[in-house]
Amino acid sequence: MDPKELGKWSFYRALIAEFVATLLFLYIGVTTVIGYKHQSDPNLNPAGDPCGGVGLLGISWAFGGMIFVLVYCTGGISGGHINPAVTFGLLLARKVSLIRAVMYMVAQCLGAISGVGLAKAFQKAYFVRYGGGATELQAGHSVGVGLAAEIIGTFVLVYTVFSATDPKRSARDSHVPVLAPLPIGFAVFMVHLATIPITGTGINPARSFGSAVILNRHEAWHYHWIYWVGPFVGAAIAAFYHQYILRAGAAKAIISFKNSNAHV
Amino acid sequence: MDPKELGKWSFYRALIAEFVATLLFLYIGVTTVIGYKHQSDPNLNPAGDPCGGVGLLGISWAFGGMIFVLVYCTGGISGGHINPAVTFGLLLARKVSLIRAVMYMVAQCLGAISGVGLAKAFQKAYFVRYGGGATELQAGHSVGVGLAAEIIGTFVLVYTVFSATDPKRSARDSHVPVLAPLPIGFAVFMVHLATIPITGTGINPARSFGSAVILNRHEAWHYHWIYWVGPFVGAAIAAFYHQYILRAGAAKAIISFKNSNAHV
Amino acid sequence: MDPKELGKWSFYRALIAEFVATLLFLYIGVTTVIGYKHQSDPNLNPAGDPCGGVGLLGISWAFGGMIFVLVYCTGGISGGHINPAVTFGLLLARKVSLIRAVMYMVAQCLGAISGVGLAKAFQKAYFVRYGGGATELQAGHSVGVGLAAEIIGTFVLVYTVFSATDPKRSARDSHVPVLAPLPIGFAVFMVHLATIPITGTGINPARSFGSAVILNRHEAWHYHWIYWVGPFVGAAIAAFYHQYILRAGAAKAIISFKNSNAHV
Amino acid sequence: MDPKELGKWSFYRALIAEFVATLLFLYIGVTTVIGYKHQSDPNLNPAGDPCGGVGLLGISWAFGGMIFVLVYCTGGISGGHINPAVTFGLLLARKVSLIRAVMYMVAQCLGAISGVGLAKAFQKAYFVRYGGGATELQAGHSVGVGLAAEIIGTFVLVYTVFSATDPKRSARDSHVPVLAPLPIGFAVFMVHLATIPITGTGINPARSFGSAVILNRHEAWHYHWIYWVGPFVGAAIAAFYHQYILRAGAAKAIISFKNSNAHV
Repeated sequence: MDPKELGKWSFYRALIAEFVATLLFLYIGVTTVIGYKHQSDPNLNPAGDPCGGVGLLGISWAFGGMIFVLVYCTGGISGGHINPAVTFGLLLARKVSLIRAVMYMVAQCLGAISGVGLAKAFQKAYFVRYGGGATELQAGHSVGVGLAAEIIGTFVLVYTVFSATDPKRSARDSHVPVLAPLPIGFAVFMVHLATIPITGTGINPARSFGSAVILNRHEAWHYHWIYWVGPFVGAAIAAFYHQYILRAGAAKAIISFKNSNAHV
Repeated sequence: MDPKELGKWSFYRALIAEFVATLLFLYIGVTTVIGYKHQSDPNLNPAGDPCGGVGLLGISWAFGGMIFVLVYCTGGISGGHINPAVTFGLLLARKVSLIRAVMYMVAQCLGAISGVGLAKAFQKAYFVRYGGGATELQAGHSVGVGLAAEIIGTFVLVYTVFSATDPKRSARDSHVPVLAPLPIGFAVFMVHLATIPITGTGINPARSFGSAVILNRHEAWHYHWIYWVGPFVGAAIAAFYHQYILRAGAAKAIISFKNSNAHV
Repeated sequence: MDPKELGKWSFYRALIAEFVATLLFLYIGVTTVIGYKHQSDPNLNPAGDPCGGVGLLGISWAFGGMIFVLVYCTGGISGGHINPAVTFGLLLARKVSLIRAVMYMVAQCLGAISGVGLAKAFQKAYFVRYGGGATELQAGHSVGVGLAAEIIGTFVLVYTVFSATDPKRSARDSHVPVLAPLPIGFAVFMVHLATIPITGTGINPARSFGSAVILNRHEAWHYHWIYWVGPFVGAAIAAFYHQYILRAGAAKAIISFKNSNAHV
Repeated sequence: MDPKELGKWSFYRALIAEFVATLLFLYIGVTTVIGYKHQSDPNLNPAGDPCGGVGLLGISWAFGGMIFVLVYCTGGISGGHINPAVTFGLLLARKVSLIRAVMYMVAQCLGAISGVGLAKAFQKAYFVRYGGGATELQAGHSVGVGLAAEIIGTFVLVYTVFSATDPKRSARDSHVPVLAPLPIGFAVFMVHLATIPITGTGINPARSFGSAVILNRHEAWHYHWIYWVGPFVGAAIAAFYHQYILRAGAAKAIISFKNSNAHV
């Protein structure tokens, strides 16, 4: 915890960047979802074209591709989290201070609410009819499955973030800093391909929270806790995996154990 | 304003590069739109295959992917604008001179007209029947919504351009110059996924202008101002955001304010 | 063969990384397959939407994109094989020791079984109904064709891996280490586009083995040998092609032949 | 023309690399086309799923993505042409010798024939029924339009190749050598999106020739000259554009003109 951060303009600039990035992320993502559902709606008169919109593949690209673009744009300003689960994972690994983590999460949630609010303001009638892009547990899946899917999905994302921002590795592998935003965006894309049919794919509590606040219907708040607990647990496991298994943590433990034995 | 530019071959070479790039951008984009609409046309006899063409996802790729390719190719020659809104944003940030900005915009508009003209010449019958790839406000959306969608969409694009071409950042982050054309292309791809159902996605006045000139129908000119005002406003906001919020502008203002207080 | 490896933590860390990566690869891939088949199932009541899921294109992206992400993440830890055929090719080229190769393959197969097991645990009913994402010879194709398709598909992948990890080339071409995980992922993506209609696309024995173990039905084990023999033969040909044709092997042979002639 | 090349192993190695790369390009591309047409065939019993295959978007990815992968793999060995039109453009720009250009084209054509031959051997019945992936002028388009579409499409590709391999630019822009194979692959992807409905998209004489030789039907040979003349003209224009407009050629001409005037 570093209170000196609070006196620096770069800290507030980072908060603004996180707010704007999460706003744009939700605006583009939710607008894509609403547009697709409208264009392919069989209940319209005349009926929508079932093959007409961008499809689930296009929706997955919208979320994953925006993360690529926004991490690229904000990486040098705020670190490019755009996701409370990412911030939480980096907090556990002591890469951001507590005050920064809390303020980032507030900025991300406010940004997400604003982004979904914009999407609603633009397409009021469609927004409510097509569920507001909210993440809901899909029919046929238990709470446990939804929670587990969010945990593993967020693990994939935060594990990629740790791999991409590892300073030791950056010094050694020239491709790490260069490509960093691209695999992070692809990780989001991949998880959407797999888990839209299960949970609608959160893996970002701000994304789910913003949609739920603006839609404000029972379905959106029901099981909403899954979209906070799942990502935070997944991020914690990824932080543990990276710090204690892949990074020298465990190695050091073993070495010191051997050394202590050697001195016996 | 630097009149010496007018005496240099590199200036005219840049104009030619902008002209050719915008021509290719519109040719590939509009041809993809026309081809898709023809292949999936339910009114044909025999009817088109609803799933047969490249889909809205393919159209989004065509516009976004061409921007990636063309920014890559022309970046070293003209800076790779291919879009009057991008040129306008860079003019506001004083990264191009007024004379260069005006001439670029003329070259881009002429290139766009030529590119759509080629697409029409190749597919005369289809071109008119399928709306010539013109950007039109889609049914169910008000003028205000269309304008706002163009503003935010162009903000996403120009914000990415500023992030990618920031000289301070380039010196610090090794991945910035390397990946620059890719996130710019992806930003265009993303915005198409989201706003094709709202405005048909302009975010490039030359693209809308070229289509409107060649199609020259009431629908294409109706609300055409949206596709100029929206992108220019969006680019101006992005320039302001980058220069005064993210770059040291505001920081310096605060520092000088503090200093002046310190001297009281 | 280097038994000293067995005493190092970095060896076990690499095994864990291969296990986790193959687990995530299969979990995301198989979950995407099951979700798509469920969403587009015409036998459901109400029937699934034929255009509703991510499509074969989305499935191809899921497998190829995950390889990009996972090779990026594990490249610095284990070399990022995630595939016994890749490990076998690198063993033949003497880039990994025998003990490391065998242990990697065991870790990969265990990871694949665990990943498919997770996918089954999450979607028990769907998993069995939709064939568990197992690779099976598709109707209308002979055993020889299936085997040949697996051989060429794996050749494409392992040839790309060799090109990307060639130390001589890395020193000369600055783009080789930077982009390495991306073309490897794309190679997997491409082969899926081509051979899903023939063999369901294995080109990774761990992927086929994990699916077969968890589904444990006659169809999955029938011709299962194709998915081991094909990839291993393809990897061997790629190793031979790279080492003896593209790398200096043959050149040296010719040079020494000329030299011996010169001395006659 | 440099006859000394003929005595070097690296020359034959380059020929082998071009042969293998073109073989793999055609094998993956044509197999994807045949598989898609079979899976979505409405005349089958039971009828294919109209939305079931990878779609035209998947086909475009197969051709464009393979070029990305193969240029990446063969760039350091042969320059990664995989296309007689690219070789022709580089010959005009004096970047390859005449003997090398001719031999490359022979290797590419033999590779293409072999690749399509493999695709036919694997799927004999489907291959003939679904047109063997041959490039044919699509209904409703005149010969002139087909020729022009091939010219512009190849111009896009060869212009990108010139931009990516420009040694002056490489020294100045750090991103040029790094990303080179990616925009080249994307250029192929883009052109397929736009011109599959017009010409089936050749922009590569070896690709069209290989398909025509193996299918050997009237439709494939009819207008086959378009797929040689179009790409060669497009490549020549791109070479002229790059050498005389974008590169210093014209600038030098103007400067020397001015200087000669100054001396009057």
